[in-house]
Amino acid sequence: MSDGPLNRQQLQERLLHSPFNAFLDLEVVSADPEKQEVIIRMKMRPEFERLTGTGHWHGGPIAAAIDIVGDYALAMMFGNPLPTINLRVDYLRPGKGTLTLAARIRRSGKTVGVVDVDVLNEAGDLVAIGRANYSTAISAPHWKE
Amino acid sequence: MSDGPLNRQQLQERLLHSPFNAFLDLEVVSADPEKQEVIIRMKMRPEFERLTGTGHWHGGPIAAAIDIVGDYALAMMFGNPLPTINLRVDYLRPGKGTLTLAARIRRSGKTVGVVDVDVLNEAGDLVAIGRANYSTAISAPHWKE
Amino acid sequence: MSDGPLNRQQLQERLLHSPFNAFLDLEVVSADPEKQEVIIRMKMRPEFERLTGTGHWHGGPIAAAIDIVGDYALAMMFGNPLPTINLRVDYLRPGKGTLTLAARIRRSGKTVGVVDVDVLNEAGDLVAIGRANYSTAISAPHWKE
Amino acid sequence: MSDGPLNRQQLQERLLHSPFNAFLDLEVVSADPEKQEVIIRMKMRPEFERLTGTGHWHGGPIAAAIDIVGDYALAMMFGNPLPTINLRVDYLRPGKGTLTLAARIRRSGKTVGVVDVDVLNEAGDLVAIGRANYSTAISAPHWKE
Repeated sequence: MSDGPLNRQQLQERLLHSPFNAFLDLEVVSADPEKQEVIIRMKMRPEFERLTGTGHWHGGPIAAAIDIVGDYALAMMFGNPLPTINLRVDYLRPGKGTLTLAARIRRSGKTVGVVDVDVLNEAGDLVAIGRANYSTAISAPHWKE
Repeated sequence: MSDGPLNRQQLQERLLHSPFNAFLDLEVVSADPEKQEVIIRMKMRPEFERLTGTGHWHGGPIAAAIDIVGDYALAMMFGNPLPTINLRVDYLRPGKGTLTLAARIRRSGKTVGVVDVDVLNEAGDLVAIGRANYSTAISAPHWKE
Repeated sequence: MSDGPLNRQQLQERLLHSPFNAFLDLEVVSADPEKQEVIIRMKMRPEFERLTGTGHWHGGPIAAAIDIVGDYALAMMFGNPLPTINLRVDYLRPGKGTLTLAARIRRSGKTVGVVDVDVLNEAGDLVAIGRANYSTAISAPHWKE
Repeated sequence: MSDGPLNRQQLQERLLHSPFNAFLDLEVVSADPEKQEVIIRMKMRPEFERLTGTGHWHGGPIAAAIDIVGDYALAMMFGNPLPTINLRVDYLRPGKGTLTLAARIRRSGKTVGVVDVDVLNEAGDLVAIGRANYSTAISAPHWKE
């Protein structure tokens, strides 16, 4: 179908196929196949607070978003999201406000893809960093078939 | 205040302090300070589906719940939840239906607590396994003060 | 060739194919295909000390041994060691003397195997715990071919 | 004693305090406190081969070196190595020849330091990537005391 990597709009549409991704209300900011990088923004909502009234993010939606954004960096190249093998998150600082997640592919092999994700607050400070493995075994870049 | 580890009801009440935990609608099944184990149940809801109509869990709420259940195993001993340092999740099988999460403390040191979490489906198959580190540096078991 | 899982002696011989494994001088204590568990012992040697004269293990050989023992749990089932995808180690206590490493397969899937490893000192205290992923994509249990 | 971060020579001397580090024969290439980065080189030796005669690195010494180099990035700032809390390694490609390990501090907090390590072969390809947590709780930058 497609002749190359998915672009920003295609990734944005894809996100809505998943009820959970739609619930997180993620906005694809950019998709750069040369840098192998996808950037997504996530807004705070009341359900995501750690403690009522603090405005602090609970770590749960941050972990979930890291998983998704990492997956969408590979989806950009493969044409569709891939199964997550594992996910690892380091929480560095309490986070408030809109978060920006930047995912960069470190390796896209025959069976495993490895992606790094940095999570920044509005001031540009690191709130969390993630690393995840995805299964590339069942998929191949669809435009190369 | 308390004279010992938090019990099942106390942990259940504590969960509602956090809007995100309340949203996940977790049910504390048991809290066993001798085994150092807390078991929690999480029901499927439409927002948690990976793809509409499949009934499959998205990995995001599973990761979030692993973080929380691990934390509550330590909260049982410390009297309150602790900051998560890091979280690691291995996804083993697609999951459907109500999930049971069993968290067991592997080490509770002066600065770091280490907890393992198994996630099972209704048939008792492993859906995911998690491991996380929490900061014990600022807290001490409150009944030992 | 073989009609089933590798036994203790076969795993012990296999270890010597690798110069690094031979250098670590690991002793296979048991190999139990029903429990999906392999136990290996590792003796201290002067090169493995963290600081001269302390008798404390450096974390490096512990991490290396966790990788190997986890791999050999799968090797028991697959007939040969598999490529390591990733390795994670939590250090829980300083370790001295001979260490016992117990590896248990948590999942052996079509592309990824997941193994947990506990590392104990002579008193039976946990020194470290590990978890690793191995690539099962290119191999199949050889006696099933 | 010191009035600031340790320099390349001081880190090189420090490495020899540990029999295991000395055995790995690591060479500190650079130590840059502004970039929060330390670069170290590790030469192949026969004990480190995965299989005799292949020239391929066993993953064990790579994991061990990631731990050490990450620690030495923090040692540059704190004046001495710190206890490793945990270590995570993703193996991306088989590695041969001399390896270059570049460690960069991502966060140096009151109780935990987080460091990323890239491992490159002589062609500049990524062989492995690591991430580790170290305990900063008992230490403070010594020149700030």
